[in-house]
Amino acid sequence: MLHRVRSAVAHLVSSGGAPPPRPKSPDLPSARSAPSAAPPEAPRSPPARAGSGSGSAAPAKTAEARASFSRPTFLQLSPGGLRRADDHAGRAVQSPPDTGRRLPWSTGYAEVINAGKSRHNEDQACCEVVYVEGRRSVSGAPREPSRGQGLCFYYWGLFDGHAGGGAAEMASKLLHRHIQEQLKDLVEILQDPSPPPLCLPSTPGAPGSSDSSHLVGPQSCWSSQKEVTHESLVVGAIENAFQFMDEQMAKERRGHQAEGGCCALVVVYLLGKVYVANAGDSRAIIVRNGEIIPMSQEFTPETERQRLQLLGFLKPELLGGEFTHLEFPRRIQPKELGQRMLYRDQNMTGWAYKKIELEDLRFPLVCGEGKKARVMATIGVTRGLGDHNLKVCSSTLPIKPFLSCFPEVRVYDLTQYEHCPDDVLVLGTDGLWDVTSDCEVAATVDRVLSAYEPNDPSRYTALAQALVLGARGTPRDRGWRLPNNKLGSGDDISVFVIPLGGPGSYS
Amino acid sequence: MLHRVRSAVAHLVSSGGAPPPRPKSPDLPSARSAPSAAPPEAPRSPPARAGSGSGSAAPAKTAEARASFSRPTFLQLSPGGLRRADDHAGRAVQSPPDTGRRLPWSTGYAEVINAGKSRHNEDQACCEVVYVEGRRSVSGAPREPSRGQGLCFYYWGLFDGHAGGGAAEMASKLLHRHIQEQLKDLVEILQDPSPPPLCLPSTPGAPGSSDSSHLVGPQSCWSSQKEVTHESLVVGAIENAFQFMDEQMAKERRGHQAEGGCCALVVVYLLGKVYVANAGDSRAIIVRNGEIIPMSQEFTPETERQRLQLLGFLKPELLGGEFTHLEFPRRIQPKELGQRMLYRDQNMTGWAYKKIELEDLRFPLVCGEGKKARVMATIGVTRGLGDHNLKVCSSTLPIKPFLSCFPEVRVYDLTQYEHCPDDVLVLGTDGLWDVTSDCEVAATVDRVLSAYEPNDPSRYTALAQALVLGARGTPRDRGWRLPNNKLGSGDDISVFVIPLGGPGSYS
Repeated sequence: MLHRVRSAVAHLVSSGGAPPPRPKSPDLPSARSAPSAAPPEAPRSPPARAGSGSGSAAPAKTAEARASFSRPTFLQLSPGGLRRADDHAGRAVQSPPDTGRRLPWSTGYAEVINAGKSRHNEDQACCEVVYVEGRRSVSGAPREPSRGQGLCFYYWGLFDGHAGGGAAEMASKLLHRHIQEQLKDLVEILQDPSPPPLCLPSTPGAPGSSDSSHLVGPQSCWSSQKEVTHESLVVGAIENAFQFMDEQMAKERRGHQAEGGCCALVVVYLLGKVYVANAGDSRAIIVRNGEIIPMSQEFTPETERQRLQLLGFLKPELLGGEFTHLEFPRRIQPKELGQRMLYRDQNMTGWAYKKIELEDLRFPLVCGEGKKARVMATIGVTRGLGDHNLKVCSSTLPIKPFLSCFPEVRVYDLTQYEHCPDDVLVLGTDGLWDVTSDCEVAATVDRVLSAYEPNDPSRYTALAQALVLGARGTPRDRGWRLPNNKLGSGDDISVFVIPLGGPGSYS
Repeated sequence: MLHRVRSAVAHLVSSGGAPPPRPKSPDLPSARSAPSAAPPEAPRSPPARAGSGSGSAAPAKTAEARASFSRPTFLQLSPGGLRRADDHAGRAVQSPPDTGRRLPWSTGYAEVINAGKSRHNEDQACCEVVYVEGRRSVSGAPREPSRGQGLCFYYWGLFDGHAGGGAAEMASKLLHRHIQEQLKDLVEILQDPSPPPLCLPSTPGAPGSSDSSHLVGPQSCWSSQKEVTHESLVVGAIENAFQFMDEQMAKERRGHQAEGGCCALVVVYLLGKVYVANAGDSRAIIVRNGEIIPMSQEFTPETERQRLQLLGFLKPELLGGEFTHLEFPRRIQPKELGQRMLYRDQNMTGWAYKKIELEDLRFPLVCGEGKKARVMATIGVTRGLGDHNLKVCSSTLPIKPFLSCFPEVRVYDLTQYEHCPDDVLVLGTDGLWDVTSDCEVAATVDRVLSAYEPNDPSRYTALAQALVLGARGTPRDRGWRLPNNKLGSGDDISVFVIPLGGPGSYS
């Protein structure tokens, strides 16, 4: 992520306030000994044609790997390949090898390192098939081992790191495990067509605590109970998994396991539906029969201005007397005191004039525009994982309270449309989208896929490579330039192309 | 507004915390002596064909009128007419008389009283042409009287009161005056095609304080200054006018000038653009060539759940130990302590299970669904004016901090489309929309307008009447019933129909 955190001011220290305590999730995955995501038994649905995932991490080596440079294991890079992937001068595009096991669904992937803005590629990626075994039956009775009660989900994740690669690497190795953990309680519920129970017994076997009498609401201002869908349980599981992942980073930051922070864009395919969860400025779009369907929105100081200002207004102590929650269209000079300046507060979308007072001379909580927009003059994204040690320059003021780890989750029902092999879900870090519009991506999808046979599984990797190359450009005139002579992206660029009806898909 | 505030719990007392102090707006309109909105001189643009507004209030009588029942003055009701308008049994539809001056733009209007839910009709309406004289020139130099520097805006407002009619009546008499006040500083700026100045002198004639040197930002993390549009200044003026109106109600509540609260839906037409500002659950749609263009969204405990929960989470003292910011799908019973219940917090859109703890037994800040959704078990709308005295039942806990007076403002550029006489902007209080869909309104627009000549100015009043009648129904089977035998709306119903290309419009 190029310049997302101002290098001059983003300094990592080991202190900082801990987040509020939350109920512990049992069997929390550990960064040091992440268990394999491979299914312990054959998944029931969908069929595990893709095996246990071609990108399974080497969990025992996580702690050592974190200390050095690493790339996604599914790239199967040799030591020489790893050096080439780390070469800022050549910027060779990396993809999984043609030989060997393909990614699930014949997913295409390509990446390239930045042009020198950070020592290593701070993007990370993950692609897995994850099996979820139920923790216990809903009724509290012991699970019958003969029933294939497990659930399987397909998972893709892009993690765009900043201020260090630790958070992105940790998230790429563990976020799907947190999702797995959150889904354990839901294994039976999600496979039962009846509405989810609103209340569950506290412990397995607690007599009668989940019978239907609990589903009848008491007489109160609630004349009825809310309907909760299976889909909303999966959304809640993903949301909480992001939060638990962020809390784990907070706990392990003192051991420098999770330096920096990262944007996270993940896709979960479960029981016919695609869940796209985004926290940061990566982007996902579906290109279907040439039509573009946005599957995420970006979270930046501009798009989240009012949320940030409201927090600063309600909790002025978070501003440390250094910042004002008001927004101004430019920096105010001390000599302008008493004049009237345009401003916006947390409630306004329009602008109005206000008399400049002494406290308006403080630096604004949110300032700048576009890619230069910043929170507290420091960070250019407002959602993501990590950043627990991030401070304002020359200050002990933590920035984290203004950053949210919660993703926006959008759901796409794969069963509602008959997809063809050219229909794809494209995930990219901002390195792609900074220089490529949605329409340009759709045009590339059409151009590249039409050059391959529909049943050629390598076409999606070719597409991912074309997208990365198109955003990187070629070295010319002392820079990486696109065919139109504009500058290409000097950022890390990572792209997944997930076929929605292709030869390797779920169908 | 039917049952919007639970009558058993909505009680008005004279105490309560004052809002934070704000800079005073000069020449703040007074509820007791609201000056006339009529232009002191002929407006320059657009031509004042509609005169000074056919609905100008009798400002000197405001205070007395507030103590008794009143209807919009543009209805020109006689004492007998006023009694008929106040008759819950007959529920006669009221419109401005055919004789006499028409509303600006030949606007159609109709209203009907509720079926008995409150003593009087708590909806109020206003339709005005308002002239704005500049407060001073931008440069600080005295204004040249020879230049026609004034601005004229057209204004329509619907105010749906609850817990008393005072707030709605006060808003109907004064909100446009607050907008006028906010626009005074902008008169020259809005008529100057160059970008608005970011900084203005503190006082007229202050030397050099608004020269272009101020437009150059200092070297800082802001490499550039933000562009501010004329449109966003009008939006900011309307937003601030709502806030000043709400503050005036807070100040005058002790004198019982502004009992209760009200939703506010207002339209401002200024310099070619229509600004629709909504705070509450009224609704505006444009019907253009049969197509429906939504011009507002409703603000209810359901649509604003996360904002309310965030405020309760960040400021738990506002919950007074009586409420929890968490949402549950039904009321929890004490015997369920220790079990696991579905919940959502301020960050979640999905649901997850949590172990029920003692504090989860508190009443939820937000509960119920649809029209029964409530904040603190009391109020069913989350934006509007007033409500400064509203307390939780059997408690001194104020609800106001959770209610916002800020509208959402949408802008529609009238010059971007050639409108025909059948293109209309329809405003309605929830009495209309509770029983009428957008599509049904569009069908009625088509049916009624096609029965009249395009240049017949009475067609818009006929349409407003048809919409009100269609939502009220006819008395049958011990109730007001629609043709499909479903219950009609028992609420107050008020409708404006504003022609966008009709015979009386701006063109």
